[in-house]
Amino acid sequence: YPYNLDFDYGALAQLQHFSINNLGDPFIESNYGVHSRQFEVGVLDWFARLWEIEKNDYWGYITNCGTEGNLHGILVGREVFPDGILYASRESHYSVFKAARMYRMECVKVDTLISGEIDCADFRAKLLANKSKPAIINVNIGTTVKGAVDDLDLVIQTLEGCGFSRDRFYIHCDGALFGLMMPFVKRAPKVSFKKPIGSVSVSGHKFVGCPMPCGVQITRMEHVNALSSNVEYLASRDATIMGSRNGHAPIFLWYTLNRKGYNGFAKEVQKCLRNAHYLKDQLRAAGIGAMLNELSSTVVFERPRDEDFVRRWQLACEGNIAHVVVMPSVSIEKLDVFLNELVKNRSTWYQEKQPPCIAADIGKENCACPLHK
Amino acid sequence: YPYNLDFDYGALAQLQHFSINNLGDPFIESNYGVHSRQFEVGVLDWFARLWEIEKNDYWGYITNCGTEGNLHGILVGREVFPDGILYASRESHYSVFKAARMYRMECVKVDTLISGEIDCADFRAKLLANKSKPAIINVNIGTTVKGAVDDLDLVIQTLEGCGFSRDRFYIHCDGALFGLMMPFVKRAPKVSFKKPIGSVSVSGHKFVGCPMPCGVQITRMEHVNALSSNVEYLASRDATIMGSRNGHAPIFLWYTLNRKGYNGFAKEVQKCLRNAHYLKDQLRAAGIGAMLNELSSTVVFERPRDEDFVRRWQLACEGNIAHVVVMPSVSIEKLDVFLNELVKNRSTWYQEKQPPCIAADIGKENCACPLHK
Repeated sequence: YPYNLDFDYGALAQLQHFSINNLGDPFIESNYGVHSRQFEVGVLDWFARLWEIEKNDYWGYITNCGTEGNLHGILVGREVFPDGILYASRESHYSVFKAARMYRMECVKVDTLISGEIDCADFRAKLLANKSKPAIINVNIGTTVKGAVDDLDLVIQTLEGCGFSRDRFYIHCDGALFGLMMPFVKRAPKVSFKKPIGSVSVSGHKFVGCPMPCGVQITRMEHVNALSSNVEYLASRDATIMGSRNGHAPIFLWYTLNRKGYNGFAKEVQKCLRNAHYLKDQLRAAGIGAMLNELSSTVVFERPRDEDFVRRWQLACEGNIAHVVVMPSVSIEKLDVFLNELVKNRSTWYQEKQPPCIAADIGKENCACPLHK
Repeated sequence: YPYNLDFDYGALAQLQHFSINNLGDPFIESNYGVHSRQFEVGVLDWFARLWEIEKNDYWGYITNCGTEGNLHGILVGREVFPDGILYASRESHYSVFKAARMYRMECVKVDTLISGEIDCADFRAKLLANKSKPAIINVNIGTTVKGAVDDLDLVIQTLEGCGFSRDRFYIHCDGALFGLMMPFVKRAPKVSFKKPIGSVSVSGHKFVGCPMPCGVQITRMEHVNALSSNVEYLASRDATIMGSRNGHAPIFLWYTLNRKGYNGFAKEVQKCLRNAHYLKDQLRAAGIGAMLNELSSTVVFERPRDEDFVRRWQLACEGNIAHVVVMPSVSIEKLDVFLNELVKNRSTWYQEKQPPCIAADIGKENCACPLHK
């Protein structure tokens, strides 16, 4: 449901007849023959252009999933600053905190605003309390639950305002879902290597719709040299987390990027945002508390009380709220079916009880409980 | 070439039309709908039976590759013994040393015998020098280059002989290639959870021939509880390294295990060993230095002098030696083509020069240089 599956499979399905394995560094020729490294580099070049970094200045690879991108970005940060403290907002993906534990890094959780964005006032206070150590920051380009986009420029400003010069911090941007949509949203703050960021990762199986979990990870060449070590066995140095990587994913990604192109993506993003607004407006019109961040297609609303309903619609829930991520495959017609079913069911859930207050989760202005509506 | 590709693809290829993603713990129901968790658990049960651990005593998952299995096994070891020292033979896969660096673990490299097996005399000396800290040991069930199988029983005996009781060591068995073949080799030492081991991993895309990189990781339930943490977002706790995992791999694995069965694998293993012996014997008969470990189908021989030849045959090389991993897809006919081409080319490489001595790599008795032949 939250995935975009409109591939032209004809020839691509035939690829499954071959085992394709990309080993080690995508930019270095290896002696293992059945690979798709040219496609991988083609996809990476596309993202390097999108995020404004020159061909010779970047390094990257196609990962097995968004988690691997975060594990890689944070590891690069730790290798650049071995005694750095990892800062991440509470609403960061759990793989960020998993990385801190795996890598034995000191980790400071930063508070969030109601929107789900990092609270830069709290970030400032925590930076000032730890001025003696470099900072490694996970910036969310779309949080998992609320689709909130951390304000990258304000994060950088906060760092510099606290006296952290550019050689004392490393920023990893976790763009799992929204990193690929945001470049096509008007007025969205730009993710760009022209700013002092160290790495960006996105998922390939969500918005792009690749049929196997995968992701794209881009970092600066200067950083990755510290990480890699020569491994003669593969005739390739290895700066990836996983050595073997699915070779089909780069071909699917390359095909989609080229078939849809920049304009195709722009149109799909517009459609997602339009449909997300429609869903939020219809929920509110039906008296259901709902929130939609300005730059996001993730609609957050009151958690349905029936677990069967939650399972049938595969809603991700956390505490009192649920969310729908509006992807290109989600049409207005499908949203209407969902809305009708929700409204009908909800009338039976709240016959004798009042709907819950979710102002603490989505803000008073978005809550539809008896007190706030 | 080193892979086994004889799937009946008819229906399976259709699966590529669906995005299948296994998130989080395979044993806990999640709210993400399009998964293949039943197949995953079926495959894990098969391996649990093979390695003699009861259904309720094990935990495991299908990984993205052999490297992920090692990363997981060593992480479990570190969580069990936070101040443990990692011991691994010099010929261990590079992912083992990558893990030590990622996890900030003290790591002691142990010497190897000419065969490639861990040298337990050196292991003993190094254990005695570090008696104050628990031991985490990577045991190779088939090293990458020489296919050497570490003597698990001797490793355990050495640990106990040095005064390490069972609550002071953790053994991870890296069975990337050979972990799945060895159970079918007569007289091979047994990998079994009836012995004091903590985890075993194998690759699924090598001997089993799964068309995408994948692997199987099994550990004891008691160990993994320390690792996992609750993540409400997925309605699933997460003890894996990667959160999202390719859902096609478990279906391919399950299908192959069931189609071939225990007897089918036994036959294929016999064929591989027979053909590997043939290759080694023919090389020696042609005056070319070559070695084959008793329990292995990896033939090690003099590195060909022509890089085009190496690339065309996709030979993995290290220093003065190259290897061929004889898989079920490698027939006698193919080996003959390879041997003829090698012998013909070699006669031009060594017209005026003597072939190199490789006794240091494969032993005097296997070397065919003028001094040792």
